[in-house]
Amino acid sequence: MNKDIFLIGSGQTRFGEWWEKSLRDLAGEAVEAALKDAPCTSLDIDMVIVANMIAERTNGQAHLGALVSSLFPHNPPALRVESACASGAVALHTACGLLESGRAQTIVVVGVEKMTDVSTEEVADALMGAADSEKDAPCGLTFPGIFGLIAKRYMHEYHLTRERLNHVSSAHHRNALHNPFAQFRKEIPAEHISQSPAVADPLCMLDCSPVSDGAAACILSTVKESDIKIAASQLASDAVSLTERATITSFPATKRAMEKALAEADIDRKSVSHLEIHDCFSIAAVINVEDLGFAEPGKGVELYEQADPVPSINASGGLKACGHPVAATGIKQVTDMAKQLRTSGSRFGLTQNFGGACASCGIHILEHTHV
Amino acid sequence: MNKDIFLIGSGQTRFGEWWEKSLRDLAGEAVEAALKDAPCTSLDIDMVIVANMIAERTNGQAHLGALVSSLFPHNPPALRVESACASGAVALHTACGLLESGRAQTIVVVGVEKMTDVSTEEVADALMGAADSEKDAPCGLTFPGIFGLIAKRYMHEYHLTRERLNHVSSAHHRNALHNPFAQFRKEIPAEHISQSPAVADPLCMLDCSPVSDGAAACILSTVKESDIKIAASQLASDAVSLTERATITSFPATKRAMEKALAEADIDRKSVSHLEIHDCFSIAAVINVEDLGFAEPGKGVELYEQADPVPSINASGGLKACGHPVAATGIKQVTDMAKQLRTSGSRFGLTQNFGGACASCGIHILEHTHV
Repeated sequence: MNKDIFLIGSGQTRFGEWWEKSLRDLAGEAVEAALKDAPCTSLDIDMVIVANMIAERTNGQAHLGALVSSLFPHNPPALRVESACASGAVALHTACGLLESGRAQTIVVVGVEKMTDVSTEEVADALMGAADSEKDAPCGLTFPGIFGLIAKRYMHEYHLTRERLNHVSSAHHRNALHNPFAQFRKEIPAEHISQSPAVADPLCMLDCSPVSDGAAACILSTVKESDIKIAASQLASDAVSLTERATITSFPATKRAMEKALAEADIDRKSVSHLEIHDCFSIAAVINVEDLGFAEPGKGVELYEQADPVPSINASGGLKACGHPVAATGIKQVTDMAKQLRTSGSRFGLTQNFGGACASCGIHILEHTHV
Repeated sequence: MNKDIFLIGSGQTRFGEWWEKSLRDLAGEAVEAALKDAPCTSLDIDMVIVANMIAERTNGQAHLGALVSSLFPHNPPALRVESACASGAVALHTACGLLESGRAQTIVVVGVEKMTDVSTEEVADALMGAADSEKDAPCGLTFPGIFGLIAKRYMHEYHLTRERLNHVSSAHHRNALHNPFAQFRKEIPAEHISQSPAVADPLCMLDCSPVSDGAAACILSTVKESDIKIAASQLASDAVSLTERATITSFPATKRAMEKALAEADIDRKSVSHLEIHDCFSIAAVINVEDLGFAEPGKGVELYEQADPVPSINASGGLKACGHPVAATGIKQVTDMAKQLRTSGSRFGLTQNFGGACASCGIHILEHTHV
């Protein structure tokens, strides 16, 4: 990092179905929670960055930077950042850059999404905007379909059984039991995962993160301090279409972002004790821990078969159990990670947030300095 | 500026109806033109920032950062920025911040939009995403309607006649005669403007910028140099809904961005000899020159009644005659301004790009250093 950037406050709404609340309401709640958590007032915010993917489709609302800026009495300069489901991490990265540039000293980054006002078909269609509209969508693919193909290929290459894959979602649901902000707080035995309705073979309903409404906000500052610093903020990109990839069982963007993030934080991956990773589908979680270097290729599922894996993975409940209001996820991961580092007294935690089939990946490493 | 940032290359497609070209094709053409203009190769680009407003609605395509990054052999990190019709300027501002932070040394900023594949009704509805979906859209307003209200109020407050307003679009069409990239290259006598079909009283078709496809790209660098420097990059926000404004005949976001931009460039507005301003509707052009301080309130139209106004205004033809592929506009303004400063041997030029009814405004001042 080119400057010390502190996470001075964060907050979120509970993720779920919020039919009675608007995008503005949800963003406002998250901002209020973050301000309450921070040693600053709304007037200290000198820039607003909003992460949002599909409000144009689900709510007819673009221009969310200005809309959220209007929640502040002084209308700070604002912008919206979008990188599909990685929008949250990419917005945080943009904030880090603008803070390092000196153009802003305290930025609120808000991720917000309201996905449950439209039909499942409409949401699935809008989410396909994260894929290639010329190369993937015309084949009739949806994202469950894309990750179904990835799961099939992975099971073929590594002889992973359907039964073993069940442990991923089951672990995430168990972790969410103690998270008051999670959409689903219900223990689900592993064998129930593959007994849930088929969505895109071999993936079942309980392999898939849900459609959710919600918002999360982080306040980052170079002038106010806290016990949590951003130790690294890195992005990487890859071809959007599956048809342009050399393999679909590993995501190079994660590997590249991870390499750069470890270098930036100047640590070894063994120093990272807590992970929040992008488990949009169970198979993605398996691939992610491998690409991040915490498991050998083909062995990722073993971490989910353990009661207390090292490092800890998605102690929040992940996307599966917390919910996945797409652009809010990357910011909620950081909100959760700060809590985990403080509660456990650990030093380094890492969040990985990706978009599409990992055509965009954002990785943040948080450092708890009062360990 | 916290670092010297040079505009080392820029280019654009002609704006117009490009039914046979995809978003990728248009973005690729603009990037290629910018690279051809720049003393660098595609491998020197270490970040891609895409400005786009409505491809999710018109093309089912989000995630344009990754999509455009894929045009480069090394898939540089990428993101998309959106701030309605100000997306272009906001993307340039984001690039300036990331360059000043040291996270990137050479960034390509690409604005792209493909609006003519869907019906006029669908485009009008998608563009209403720039307004407030809770407070403006439910009243049945469209953007021509919003600017119709603004024009009505302005004519009432300042006794502007419909005939005098005709000079705005007529001047823009005259200017575009010599611009090979303009969508419309046709002289239109002033009296024809108000004889064109009514759109939203008092505005007629020829008061409105058209629906367009197109792309523009700028390459900004802190390590490669050119004769054009970014002397200022500033943003300001305002309430999105007209119902939350103290006045609708002046846009405070322009005034605030202008004040900050002049301070950043450390110049007086009299040093600015060339303007490219956001004339989405004729009345907006009148208000803009007043808010920028080049005319007294109520007197803006006088500048358009002169054959050679000082400063020069929209020598390119502006949004009216060049076309307005919304997110490409702010980037195309900078592309044009570089040409104007070089051709005229002038030192300072200013671009003003706004979103919605100026709920977001981005101002850039360019300095030609070899004068």
